[in-house]
Amino acid sequence: MTSLNDTHNPKLTSWVPSANEIGSDFPIQNLPMGVFRNAGSNGEYRGGVAIGNQILDVGKAFDAGQLKGDAAAACKQSTLNTLMGLGRGHWVSLRDQLSRLLRSGGNEKEGRTCLVDMAGAEMTVPARIGDFTDFYSSINHATNVGRMFRPENPLLPNYKYVPIAYHGRSSSIRVSGTPTKRPTGQLKGPDAETPNFDACRRLDYETELGVFVGPGNVLGYPIPLEEAEDHVFGLCILNDWSARDIQTWEYQPLGPFMAKNFSSTISPWIVTLEALAPYRSAIFKRPKGDPAPLPYLHTKSHEGSGGLDINIEVAVLTDKMRKNGDLPHVIGAPNFKGMYWSVFQMLAHHSSNGCNLNPGDLFGSGTVSGTTPDTYGSILEACKGGKQTISFPGDEERTFLEDGDEVVMRAWCDGDGKARIGFGECRSVIVSAA
Amino acid sequence: MTSLNDTHNPKLTSWVPSANEIGSDFPIQNLPMGVFRNAGSNGEYRGGVAIGNQILDVGKAFDAGQLKGDAAAACKQSTLNTLMGLGRGHWVSLRDQLSRLLRSGGNEKEGRTCLVDMAGAEMTVPARIGDFTDFYSSINHATNVGRMFRPENPLLPNYKYVPIAYHGRSSSIRVSGTPTKRPTGQLKGPDAETPNFDACRRLDYETELGVFVGPGNVLGYPIPLEEAEDHVFGLCILNDWSARDIQTWEYQPLGPFMAKNFSSTISPWIVTLEALAPYRSAIFKRPKGDPAPLPYLHTKSHEGSGGLDINIEVAVLTDKMRKNGDLPHVIGAPNFKGMYWSVFQMLAHHSSNGCNLNPGDLFGSGTVSGTTPDTYGSILEACKGGKQTISFPGDEERTFLEDGDEVVMRAWCDGDGKARIGFGECRSVIVSAA
Repeated sequence: MTSLNDTHNPKLTSWVPSANEIGSDFPIQNLPMGVFRNAGSNGEYRGGVAIGNQILDVGKAFDAGQLKGDAAAACKQSTLNTLMGLGRGHWVSLRDQLSRLLRSGGNEKEGRTCLVDMAGAEMTVPARIGDFTDFYSSINHATNVGRMFRPENPLLPNYKYVPIAYHGRSSSIRVSGTPTKRPTGQLKGPDAETPNFDACRRLDYETELGVFVGPGNVLGYPIPLEEAEDHVFGLCILNDWSARDIQTWEYQPLGPFMAKNFSSTISPWIVTLEALAPYRSAIFKRPKGDPAPLPYLHTKSHEGSGGLDINIEVAVLTDKMRKNGDLPHVIGAPNFKGMYWSVFQMLAHHSSNGCNLNPGDLFGSGTVSGTTPDTYGSILEACKGGKQTISFPGDEERTFLEDGDEVVMRAWCDGDGKARIGFGECRSVIVSAA
Repeated sequence: MTSLNDTHNPKLTSWVPSANEIGSDFPIQNLPMGVFRNAGSNGEYRGGVAIGNQILDVGKAFDAGQLKGDAAAACKQSTLNTLMGLGRGHWVSLRDQLSRLLRSGGNEKEGRTCLVDMAGAEMTVPARIGDFTDFYSSINHATNVGRMFRPENPLLPNYKYVPIAYHGRSSSIRVSGTPTKRPTGQLKGPDAETPNFDACRRLDYETELGVFVGPGNVLGYPIPLEEAEDHVFGLCILNDWSARDIQTWEYQPLGPFMAKNFSSTISPWIVTLEALAPYRSAIFKRPKGDPAPLPYLHTKSHEGSGGLDINIEVAVLTDKMRKNGDLPHVIGAPNFKGMYWSVFQMLAHHSSNGCNLNPGDLFGSGTVSGTTPDTYGSILEACKGGKQTISFPGDEERTFLEDGDEVVMRAWCDGDGKARIGFGECRSVIVSAA
C-alpha cells in the first residue's frame, strides 16, 4: 500500500492562495496530473499539475532546475504515457518535489514563473489511450439494470465470481467540456415489427470513475493482485454515455457496441493513487452467503485496503435552468466504497489470462450506484427505465436526456480531519443529432 | 469502385523471377504492403511491398529517386498509419509506380538495390492499431454457434438488421509466427457448483479476414456507405483466438472479454483494396423472406460490387505431424463471398452513430463459415461444441486445440484467367500456459 508521508499532512498549505480555500479540489495534498496548453494558442500540449486555480507547468519547472528526474522531464511531452510507464518510485519522487516547491515556504519566487492560470488553459485527454476497458463493478447497478431485463433473475450467476467487463472504444474519448452529439442508430420499439434508423431517444449518462494504468505487463504474464497497485497511476471521472434504445436492440449476443462508442467524457485531472492514500479503505464487505473471491482475486492486505472512499455526484443542468441561473440539479450521489470489485481486482483479473496492459490504458469502473434512488449513477435507474419522471427546478421533468442538457459529474474525498482531495468536474452538453 | 487498370493485367510479369511462379501469393498484380526489418538486426522497422519471395524497401527506393510522392515517403516510417491516412489517390499512385518499377522491363538494375530477401526479414504488425473491432458477419457461423446455446432460436432477431460487432483488444494483436500462450481463466463446467481458475481446455481459432481502415472521419460525422470504400486500405488474415470455456462462463451480459483478449494473430501483408479489384463481386444474395438492409446499409452499386471473392483455408499441424513431416491438415475452407455483411457495410455501420474511425484501425470480419462442415471457420463448429472428434493424419484426434498445435490460415483469390492474389499465411503455435 502506498504509505502516508508528509505530503499528506492536512496542515500543509500552499503559497498559491486559492489552493488553501475551503472546498478547493486541488489543495497542496492533491497534486493531480493533466495535460494542458494555453487556450487558443494552438501550441503543444504539456504535462501540468493542478494547484488551486493554477497549473504548474512541470516541464518548464524541470527546465528551470526547480524539479529533477525523469518523471518531471516526461511532463514535457504531450501525453503522460511516459510518466505513467516510469512507475511508483518516480511518481513519488515527483510528488515529493512538487509538494516542497508549492507548499508555503517553498520557492514561491521561482515557482510563480511556471504557473499558468487554469482559466486561461485548455485541457485535453491526458494520455494516448491504447485500449479502453469498461467494467461493471457495482452490484447495485448490475442488479437495478438486470431487473429491467430479467425481473426474476436480475443478477447473472457469474457476477459474484467474475469482474465483468467489455472492451470499449478509445478513439471517441474526449475531455470534459467537449459537447456530446446525440447519436443516431438502429432503434426498435418493443411492439415495432422492424427497426428504423433515427436519433437516439433514450440517451443516458453512466457515472463512473476511470483508472489510468501505469507500467504494463508482457503479453502472457499476468499481474498478481499483490502487485496490482504498482500498476495503477491514478483515477479520473468518466461519463460513459449510453444510448439505451440502441443498446436494447443491438446488445445480444456480443454486448454493447454502437450504444457506447459515440462518446465517452473524462475529467482532465488524474488524481494519483498516492494522493488517495489517506482514503484507502477496506473493500466492500460481501453479504453472508456470497462466495469469497477466487484466490487470484483475494489477499488479506487487499481485503483491508483495496477500497477507495470517494464521493461521487452526478447532476444535470437543462437549457431552461441555465437561463434561469440555476445550479446543476443533483440526481445521484453514490460512494465508490460500495463497489463489489476494487480497481486492483479489475486490474489483476484483466491480466489474469495473460492479456497485456500498457501505460495509459483506461479502465472504467462501471456505473457507480448505491442502493437507494438518490445514489443511482444512471438516468435509466433513476427513471426506472423511463416509467417514472424526474422533477427538475423550474417545473421541468425528464426521463432520458434532452438536447441542451449538460451532465456534470464531480468526485471528491473528505472527512476525519483529512485534507480534501477533489477530482474537479467532468461535464458535457448534449447537442442535437446531425 | 476501384477501377481496373494495367496494374491488374494478368499477362504482366516481374523481373523478380519468384513473382512469376505458378501459385505465388505475391505476383506483380498484388503488391501488398507490410512492415519489416532485417531479421535479428534490432534496426528500425519500415514499410515494404512483397514481390515473389522478395521485399522492396519502399522508403529506400524513395530515397534513391525510384519512387516519388508522399505515399512512398510514408513507408520510411515504422508503421503504415500515415500511408493509410493519405487516401486512395496516393495509394493508387504508389501502386502504379511500384508496378512499373517491378514489372519486366522496369528498372531492374536500380530496383535490385532495394530488395530484401523475405527469408531474411522479420515482419511486425503493420500499423499502430488504435482500436480493434470484431464483427460477426457470417450468418452461417452465427447460426452454428447460436444453435449450441439456443437450439430452438439459433439466430437472434437483430442479426439480419444489425452488422453485429464488439470492441476487441488491440494491445495483444501479434504478427504471424508469434507463438500463442494458452490462456488461464475462470472456467465452470455445466455441472460444477462454482468456477475454478485454470488453464483453458477449450482453446479455439476463429478464421477471419482483417480490414485496415484508411482515412478516418471526424467524431460525430458518419461515413455513408457510398463513401465507405475510400476508407478501406486493405485486408489481411486474422486468427481471433477464442477460449470457449472462459467465454461460456463470462460472456453474459456484456459479451466476450477475457475469452478473446489474450491474443489475436494477423498475417503480415495487407492486400490492398486496389489489388482486390478484379475479385469484387455482388454481395451475398439474401434468401427470400430476409429483410432488405436498412437504407443506410444499402445502395445499388454496393449490391453489385460490395462482395469480395476470397478463398480462405484453415489448417492445423500437430506436434506429431510436424515430426512425421506431414503438411498442415485442412479443417475448413470457406469463401468470403458468403458473408451476410460486406466490409463496406461494416464500416458504414460502425460510423453511423458518429463514432470516429482512424487510419490503422482494424476490423475483424467475424469467423468466416460456410454451410457445410468442410467450410467451418472454427473448431467449435467443426467438433460440434466438443461432441465430435476431428481425425488427423497419423491417427490423432482432436476436439479443441492442444499445446504444440500450430494453426495455419491462408487466403487467396483466383479464377477466370485473372492473376492470383495471395494473402500469405497467418500462423501461430500454441505454447503451454504458465
